[in-house]
Amino acid sequence: MKALVLERVGELSIRDIDLPDTVGANDVKIAIDTVGVCGSDVHYYTHGRIGDFVVKDPMVLGHEGAGTVIEVGGAVKHLEVGDRVCMEPGVPDPTSRASKLGIYNVDPAVTFWATPPDHGILTNEVVHPAAFTYRLPDAVSFAEGAMVEPFAIGMQAAARAKITPGDVAVVTGCGTIGIMVALAALAGGCSKVIISDVSAEKLEIAVRYDGVIPVNVAEGTLQAAVDEHTSGWGADVVFEASGAPSVLNDAVRAVRPGGCLVMVGMPPSEIPFDLNAAIAREIRIETVFRYANVFDRALELIASGKVDLKPLISETFSFDQSIEAFERAAKGLPTDIKLQIKIAVSGD
Amino acid sequence: MKALVLERVGELSIRDIDLPDTVGANDVKIAIDTVGVCGSDVHYYTHGRIGDFVVKDPMVLGHEGAGTVIEVGGAVKHLEVGDRVCMEPGVPDPTSRASKLGIYNVDPAVTFWATPPDHGILTNEVVHPAAFTYRLPDAVSFAEGAMVEPFAIGMQAAARAKITPGDVAVVTGCGTIGIMVALAALAGGCSKVIISDVSAEKLEIAVRYDGVIPVNVAEGTLQAAVDEHTSGWGADVVFEASGAPSVLNDAVRAVRPGGCLVMVGMPPSEIPFDLNAAIAREIRIETVFRYANVFDRALELIASGKVDLKPLISETFSFDQSIEAFERAAKGLPTDIKLQIKIAVSGD
Amino acid sequence: MKALVLERVGELSIRDIDLPDTVGANDVKIAIDTVGVCGSDVHYYTHGRIGDFVVKDPMVLGHEGAGTVIEVGGAVKHLEVGDRVCMEPGVPDPTSRASKLGIYNVDPAVTFWATPPDHGILTNEVVHPAAFTYRLPDAVSFAEGAMVEPFAIGMQAAARAKITPGDVAVVTGCGTIGIMVALAALAGGCSKVIISDVSAEKLEIAVRYDGVIPVNVAEGTLQAAVDEHTSGWGADVVFEASGAPSVLNDAVRAVRPGGCLVMVGMPPSEIPFDLNAAIAREIRIETVFRYANVFDRALELIASGKVDLKPLISETFSFDQSIEAFERAAKGLPTDIKLQIKIAVSGD
Amino acid sequence: MKALVLERVGELSIRDIDLPDTVGANDVKIAIDTVGVCGSDVHYYTHGRIGDFVVKDPMVLGHEGAGTVIEVGGAVKHLEVGDRVCMEPGVPDPTSRASKLGIYNVDPAVTFWATPPDHGILTNEVVHPAAFTYRLPDAVSFAEGAMVEPFAIGMQAAARAKITPGDVAVVTGCGTIGIMVALAALAGGCSKVIISDVSAEKLEIAVRYDGVIPVNVAEGTLQAAVDEHTSGWGADVVFEASGAPSVLNDAVRAVRPGGCLVMVGMPPSEIPFDLNAAIAREIRIETVFRYANVFDRALELIASGKVDLKPLISETFSFDQSIEAFERAAKGLPTDIKLQIKIAVSGD
Repeated sequence: MKALVLERVGELSIRDIDLPDTVGANDVKIAIDTVGVCGSDVHYYTHGRIGDFVVKDPMVLGHEGAGTVIEVGGAVKHLEVGDRVCMEPGVPDPTSRASKLGIYNVDPAVTFWATPPDHGILTNEVVHPAAFTYRLPDAVSFAEGAMVEPFAIGMQAAARAKITPGDVAVVTGCGTIGIMVALAALAGGCSKVIISDVSAEKLEIAVRYDGVIPVNVAEGTLQAAVDEHTSGWGADVVFEASGAPSVLNDAVRAVRPGGCLVMVGMPPSEIPFDLNAAIAREIRIETVFRYANVFDRALELIASGKVDLKPLISETFSFDQSIEAFERAAKGLPTDIKLQIKIAVSGD
Repeated sequence: MKALVLERVGELSIRDIDLPDTVGANDVKIAIDTVGVCGSDVHYYTHGRIGDFVVKDPMVLGHEGAGTVIEVGGAVKHLEVGDRVCMEPGVPDPTSRASKLGIYNVDPAVTFWATPPDHGILTNEVVHPAAFTYRLPDAVSFAEGAMVEPFAIGMQAAARAKITPGDVAVVTGCGTIGIMVALAALAGGCSKVIISDVSAEKLEIAVRYDGVIPVNVAEGTLQAAVDEHTSGWGADVVFEASGAPSVLNDAVRAVRPGGCLVMVGMPPSEIPFDLNAAIAREIRIETVFRYANVFDRALELIASGKVDLKPLISETFSFDQSIEAFERAAKGLPTDIKLQIKIAVSGD
Repeated sequence: MKALVLERVGELSIRDIDLPDTVGANDVKIAIDTVGVCGSDVHYYTHGRIGDFVVKDPMVLGHEGAGTVIEVGGAVKHLEVGDRVCMEPGVPDPTSRASKLGIYNVDPAVTFWATPPDHGILTNEVVHPAAFTYRLPDAVSFAEGAMVEPFAIGMQAAARAKITPGDVAVVTGCGTIGIMVALAALAGGCSKVIISDVSAEKLEIAVRYDGVIPVNVAEGTLQAAVDEHTSGWGADVVFEASGAPSVLNDAVRAVRPGGCLVMVGMPPSEIPFDLNAAIAREIRIETVFRYANVFDRALELIASGKVDLKPLISETFSFDQSIEAFERAAKGLPTDIKLQIKIAVSGD
Repeated sequence: MKALVLERVGELSIRDIDLPDTVGANDVKIAIDTVGVCGSDVHYYTHGRIGDFVVKDPMVLGHEGAGTVIEVGGAVKHLEVGDRVCMEPGVPDPTSRASKLGIYNVDPAVTFWATPPDHGILTNEVVHPAAFTYRLPDAVSFAEGAMVEPFAIGMQAAARAKITPGDVAVVTGCGTIGIMVALAALAGGCSKVIISDVSAEKLEIAVRYDGVIPVNVAEGTLQAAVDEHTSGWGADVVFEASGAPSVLNDAVRAVRPGGCLVMVGMPPSEIPFDLNAAIAREIRIETVFRYANVFDRALELIASGKVDLKPLISETFSFDQSIEAFERAAKGLPTDIKLQIKIAVSGD
């Protein structure tokens, strides 16, 4: 099967590669329609590793996908051939201790697309467990379906925050994930979201959404903005989505007494952290690792129109242009939120 | 001071009455601008009692109010003369056991406007603790400010439900409170709200809001609608806002396994309840008694534009017409969501 | 294989019966040592049905078991031949929507031992998924291991209550489940448990445990006892474990403002319920359906000595005496908490 | 009134000093019986400051107290002259935003005994708000009553952890606070507590309590002990009670996937923290700042016998010996858990 293969650091090719195609009783086979390019895909391309995950053998990239079911295992009940679907890329051991607790995202046995040694889905077909394959409502396009995975991070962050309706939130970092978090926080009950970055161009994209208040921290402090918009009380929830150590301590200080800090970005190890600022106001700190049980709820929000992800798709490439797509993504243009690759030659 | 006084069951008059007007150190005095007519006000007018609360002496009605601060106690810090405000009508003992726990709404010592023996606010001025008086953001009018109290019930219901972002909700009962709950549930994180009633006219008003799906249970069952919109899984949260015993058991059966039923309406005592339907799916049942700590969050949602209560104000009467307003409210027209009385002769 | 078979209502026999014995990759085979007699087993014996579950064909009884692993499937990692274990009798579809959420107990696809049409374990050997089979710590005997299942109900009730350390609890009903709940509540953080019943003999057994305060409601009201022990404030948590409609409304009225009622017992359908008593103090009502994710935690509490279930084993019968055990259980003697059947001829 | 006065760093005297003694309507006056010596008292004595709190004027020390009510304000209902009581040393503004939310411990307006500029209670009499004064059950002595304050820290930590019954906990640091946390965790639902320190003498005291497993981290790693006692899964809850930066990262790594780290100790500012270790297992981090709403629950646990604090009182000094008590406390002997000063000449 033809696929976009990361041969080694910095080298991509579109070529044939053997991929598993046996459909088990609980599996479905999906014809891929659209795949988004994620920062982690790009990072494997440019660095060959993420933390302990090192690319040693050629690996197919891509894990944000949507497509059409073309074969269904014998025990599958909720899906049929022809169903338009999107897929959760991480598959746990369903009877592990973590899975039984409902937190299958932290099951140590999880395999995850395009994470060494597992292949991704920048190819024509993939076999996947039906339990982690979700039917797209009619109102949701393939392109939007392929946005569910990155949006799921935002949904997980919003769920972990335990938002009380009307909460005022802050998101530090206005990259793709920061915007996803802001949209999930607004859809998930926040009244307004103050989003901070040093890039005016990124903030311009976020501010198109109702309820988003931009703060350019190259020009003023986050604390001043938070004080202004909360009468000095602080934000109920602060989502740290920059991963930058310098931002972290500003983030914690922006939380109100008894509020919550949610760590979405992955900072470098052992960073200097002002834990006392958290303790003095008895802040709860939640962390986010991928997601669990959010794809169906994300789809409900997109289908109902409460969340519109379409404006975040900056450009769509054909499968033949996928190396070009990665080169563009590697540039990290501030105006590029999400690049997608359209695998199928037809589709919505 | 001139006030709308309930003299006895069925008899209202606008007349002078002595009301407390000493401003304590922690109090403010407010010139009332607008007061909404609540079902409980009307019930005291038509029945003279609600449960154990019996009107024995003439009582000023009204508890949904907004106005302007005209005097400030010596210890008050967050309010100034001229501030436009709305008021929380229930005042607890701030150091009671319940208050210390943050659930001051269930403090047995609470006094509440227009609940015997305490007077309401259908008059020109009222003295109130500053701690239960909330500044209106510039974007919020007096008329909207007077809607915060009924909306607060919806906010409390949404908070107690502990909505996970994207949850699908049902609201049974499309009266004023049902609509308030639906709006709070949508603003509070639900993806869509199925609202049921037997009145097509009431459903027509609710359905003007995005995300609301009407079900006329005179024409089909709630269960069928819920099955259709949740693929047979059930609703994550069902808010019972009809207070009708016949609806309650339909409501509990509409909840998904492990979901939540929120009792907002006050049913008659000792109703036949299918508790086993709740147990078999291990449903959590939350109850709502007024509200605590929601006025500020309600105001944030209204100010940010996420919640628009203006279309629910069916008609506004002058103070001189307030008896007429009560007579109209007593008719319970299906198209009347909220009637308001404008006390001030000027204002926004 | 020889087994205790319920042939039809009122007729038990010990005889050979064909039972599944294929060990799948994720299964273990267990030589049964001890099986407890549960009220539901007895109810099938005396009535032939529980709600919608009707015994139509001969069925092996028993679901509270402990034994020794004698064969291990190829994919099993956490168990070995020779391990002493106890077993969770309900097995869900591990990739169902409920299971993915961590609430596998409410998965509609659950199969449960000795629940028609599924056989129980009053026999010599059983095949079971390893994921629902738990290794007994050295300090826990087979007899105690067979007590984990009924204790798990108490554990689930205590978990759903979300006890805050030091909470004062009430348990209404001092049968086997009531005592299990009381012990779990005390081990789970309550300071004291007021337990009510009309049987002095039952209360005498419960009161042997530290922290249990008996109330004979044949002699005084529950409310009076709760008022005395909580200075009139009410209990933080009330566990209803009697299943008696007449007790339910006393139970709800014993809860403090903002407290919690946990429904453990299964009352008859559509009982008259004073919901207003719950609403007026904004009580949360939790329900308990079996259990999920509690066996390991139950074993930790037993192994650490915090929970001692041994005094609750009223008598042990041999496999040959198992019909006699059921006849004794059917008498419902107030002094019989748990009868057990020792299947293995040796063991601890 | 005679009091123990910290004149300046390193200088204590017992001398007359003017203290407020007006009993307001909501206050009580208490004759102090017993006061515990806290690490913070000692720190003010030896360093003259804690963080931003600097001793500028002579200050009476002591905030862990019990005594007898000798005068009652006119509005006080739940206390009478002669009641034996203990007192919560922090007093918030009862109508502040934090207090209304039930988190009065993080009210910026809190005043706290023996925290500059507020005097403590190492004197004969004190006036205090009745709402923060708690009646001692008959079974609780004055000495135990004076232990409620330090135990309250443990209670707050246990409450914030949201322990599920049977959880396995770790406490890092076996000082006074570490032991208090361990006892609260056990009473609050944990099955066992692994407690770590480098002092064999301190561990020896903790291990006298059932359920406590000591780990001397001078001799082996915490991780090895946690792996052994949790089959490699990790602890459900880890309480960091050492305040030592070097311990913090060991603490976070000891938490199971999806578990909780509770920060009880106050580490130095901006310490290097391995946040990624928390994120990779999606750990929740709770922080503890003093306590709210725990005194009554602490008293229930002590009165019921579930928590026995008496063995932790290492020695009792008379008021005349109180400087000696502070000199002894300043030595920080590993075998000294709590030193107390008996102010009253008689009492239990």
